[in-house]
Amino acid sequence: MDNIKLIDGLQLSPLRVIPGELGDVYHGLKATDVSFQGFGEAYFSTVHCKAVKGWKMHTRMVLNLIVPVGAIRFVCFDNREDSPTRNKLSDITLSVQNYQRLTVPPLIWMAFQGVGSELNMLLNVASLPHDPGESISLPLNSPEIPFSKW
Amino acid sequence: MDNIKLIDGLQLSPLRVIPGELGDVYHGLKATDVSFQGFGEAYFSTVHCKAVKGWKMHTRMVLNLIVPVGAIRFVCFDNREDSPTRNKLSDITLSVQNYQRLTVPPLIWMAFQGVGSELNMLLNVASLPHDPGESISLPLNSPEIPFSKW
Repeated sequence: MDNIKLIDGLQLSPLRVIPGELGDVYHGLKATDVSFQGFGEAYFSTVHCKAVKGWKMHTRMVLNLIVPVGAIRFVCFDNREDSPTRNKLSDITLSVQNYQRLTVPPLIWMAFQGVGSELNMLLNVASLPHDPGESISLPLNSPEIPFSKW
Repeated sequence: MDNIKLIDGLQLSPLRVIPGELGDVYHGLKATDVSFQGFGEAYFSTVHCKAVKGWKMHTRMVLNLIVPVGAIRFVCFDNREDSPTRNKLSDITLSVQNYQRLTVPPLIWMAFQGVGSELNMLLNVASLPHDPGESISLPLNSPEIPFSKW
């Protein structure tokens, strides 16, 4: 389901899972990782199966998204005027089975959908604390974003 | 199960859960929170029901522990020479039902046990990246730590 070419500035980083007899350890984000752009807030978001949260665009925040429970599909749309991938979409499903970190720079539109039939949970290690004035939302059926294949 | 008086330097911070029709948002840690002591790494650890991981003491790392899935019991022991709570234990169970953040300063011994019958998962937003030389481990039955009520 992942696109071959990602939107310019998106990063997909494979993460290690270290299995253990008592339980496992799942890597997330280190301050020394290239995709770390400062720490503002860490929070979880859950999304029911087939439900879609979005569209939202952050104007300054860098998102670092990790899915340690269930599976979540992230659809990103690039309408940045000077981007080499303008008008491209990236469609990426993260899960424990595809355990990677998705880094989303500012000015990318994103929506995400629950894929697993049970709990679907993401962690966002965001570069800024939540600030409602820093993001813009559009309805899912907005004509500005040419994607409807939910 | 929580003790009335926490070990000196431990912090328990109630966290908000924001319910939503499509899914919920669970607060974790903000850079502006008092218990934030720098960002080194965010990782998950799971622990099977009744299994215990520990004992471990970090010499420099501050732990910020959040349990968004299942329930995990944290037992902390203070053997710091000059501590007002020397030789005290704190026994705290975090879960989605008791959704709080536990902040653990350096030099506290800790072990944690899976309580829920299904997935038990913690997020640690650690003040330092993982460094095996920064922590000390002891076996669960170590005579140095007078706790065995697992």
